[in-house]
Amino acid sequence: MFTGLSAFPLTPVTARGVDEQGFTKILARLTAARVDSLGVLGSTGSYAYLSREQRKRSATLACQVAGEIPVMVCVGAISTDAVLHLAEDAQSAGAAALLLPAMSYQPLRDEEVYALFETVTRHASVPVCVYDNPRTTHFRFADELLGQLSSLKGIRSIKIPGVPDTPIAAAERVAALRQHLRPDVTLGISGDASAGLGLNAGCEVWYSVCGGIFPETAKQITQAAAINDAERVTALTHRLQPLWDLFRKHGGSIRVIAAAAGILGLTDADCLPRPLLPLSAAEVAEVAAVMAALDLK
Amino acid sequence: MFTGLSAFPLTPVTARGVDEQGFTKILARLTAARVDSLGVLGSTGSYAYLSREQRKRSATLACQVAGEIPVMVCVGAISTDAVLHLAEDAQSAGAAALLLPAMSYQPLRDEEVYALFETVTRHASVPVCVYDNPRTTHFRFADELLGQLSSLKGIRSIKIPGVPDTPIAAAERVAALRQHLRPDVTLGISGDASAGLGLNAGCEVWYSVCGGIFPETAKQITQAAAINDAERVTALTHRLQPLWDLFRKHGGSIRVIAAAAGILGLTDADCLPRPLLPLSAAEVAEVAAVMAALDLK
Repeated sequence: MFTGLSAFPLTPVTARGVDEQGFTKILARLTAARVDSLGVLGSTGSYAYLSREQRKRSATLACQVAGEIPVMVCVGAISTDAVLHLAEDAQSAGAAALLLPAMSYQPLRDEEVYALFETVTRHASVPVCVYDNPRTTHFRFADELLGQLSSLKGIRSIKIPGVPDTPIAAAERVAALRQHLRPDVTLGISGDASAGLGLNAGCEVWYSVCGGIFPETAKQITQAAAINDAERVTALTHRLQPLWDLFRKHGGSIRVIAAAAGILGLTDADCLPRPLLPLSAAEVAEVAAVMAALDLK
Repeated sequence: MFTGLSAFPLTPVTARGVDEQGFTKILARLTAARVDSLGVLGSTGSYAYLSREQRKRSATLACQVAGEIPVMVCVGAISTDAVLHLAEDAQSAGAAALLLPAMSYQPLRDEEVYALFETVTRHASVPVCVYDNPRTTHFRFADELLGQLSSLKGIRSIKIPGVPDTPIAAAERVAALRQHLRPDVTLGISGDASAGLGLNAGCEVWYSVCGGIFPETAKQITQAAAINDAERVTALTHRLQPLWDLFRKHGGSIRVIAAAAGILGLTDADCLPRPLLPLSAAEVAEVAAVMAALDLK
């Protein structure tokens, strides 16, 4: 399941808690598009803002709606105890894999992060994907540490935050990292603006926020990557530059994706967990204009 | 209560959860030293690693042991809902004040942080101290935002992370920030290595990790500050340089303080919540040597 398009949906949240109806609509949109896998309760899935109970219910719902499509559930938390409880819940819900970041409060040492992954893979009965997202977790994985983690039997994929911004540098980066890894561990690109570069550099999977709301648009790109049509991958991802620009302008993708979910009628216009605030009406109009101009779907 | 020495104790945690016996011993040491207030479940108090239930029990225990000494309880969490629940719990436990950081996962906008504090102060019936700790929360408060927050009726103090490292620059920094604040909002220095500079620059309170385990040592400093004996404040804090060096060497104070609690026989040698790991035996010996050489108590 660690190849192709892994769609990372928003978990819509209103003042009454998780909007399960909206979440179901988002999930159904992804299953209808036959994405290769789902990555629920990731950063855009607001895992960090939800209670254990909310995460358990959301994971269960996702697995129910997903049917045959495998679901990876993010089990990130600041304490190892909490991660273990979340991993139990995710597996009970039917998760086919776990996504584990090194969420930090006190800055973590490499040996602490290694011990976290060793503990979780020892307890888990499904494979684990390493989630490297320094922008939100404030931990930077060294390649050597990723190499050590990939030697753990349960680790099957690494979600990397991006690649350098030229094809040659991206290919060098992916090759350099790959040298440290067990051969059957896949690399997945995230940071949607890097997706084309990452896929063309040999990443086997796109862990995609864009794919979590515009699955048809994202799937064209992973399908082109699957037949090694690098030119088409580049053209399709360059075309989406106005979307990447919106992500950058609004301090990450989540506020833009929440606006898009509202525009598509899948959720309320305000569907972010507090303290996050929705975009202004003018900003939402700009998102709608980009969606229309690029025919995002 | 927002003046003098506010002692920030460790919450010792073992594989069985919060070590309530150890926590009680640490708290009793602080009340015996008659610190001016307690700041429990702060960063060194591992709030970010504990469940709601663990935080409720720890806050209750602290208020019981503290007796007449006012207790401030940190209610930090990534979601506003969680903060509101924790604030309720802390107030039920007997907290005299709440300490509120802008804990972030998605990078926060100023208006989101303002709305968080506005919501919490509106719901709380005890005063709130703003907790500015960018090292762990990854949010930087602009002076203008602190000014807006200080206009909220419930805000009574601001815990700042440090000051520039000369007396003149520190005084200028404190004066510049003070211009933005309502006059009855106190400034508290944290980042123990900055304590002397901060107190001499006019901070009314030391929110002190050192004071959470070595209250007699810390109290000498705030007592000197209380009679404006700047020279003595400087001498006493310079003397502690080897302790500040240990904090820096070990990526912050918490691992050093946990080692110290073990050395003092207040807790197990391993009393940090996972994924945090205790210092090595050699590192603990170095902490013990500094404690002995400086006669920390």
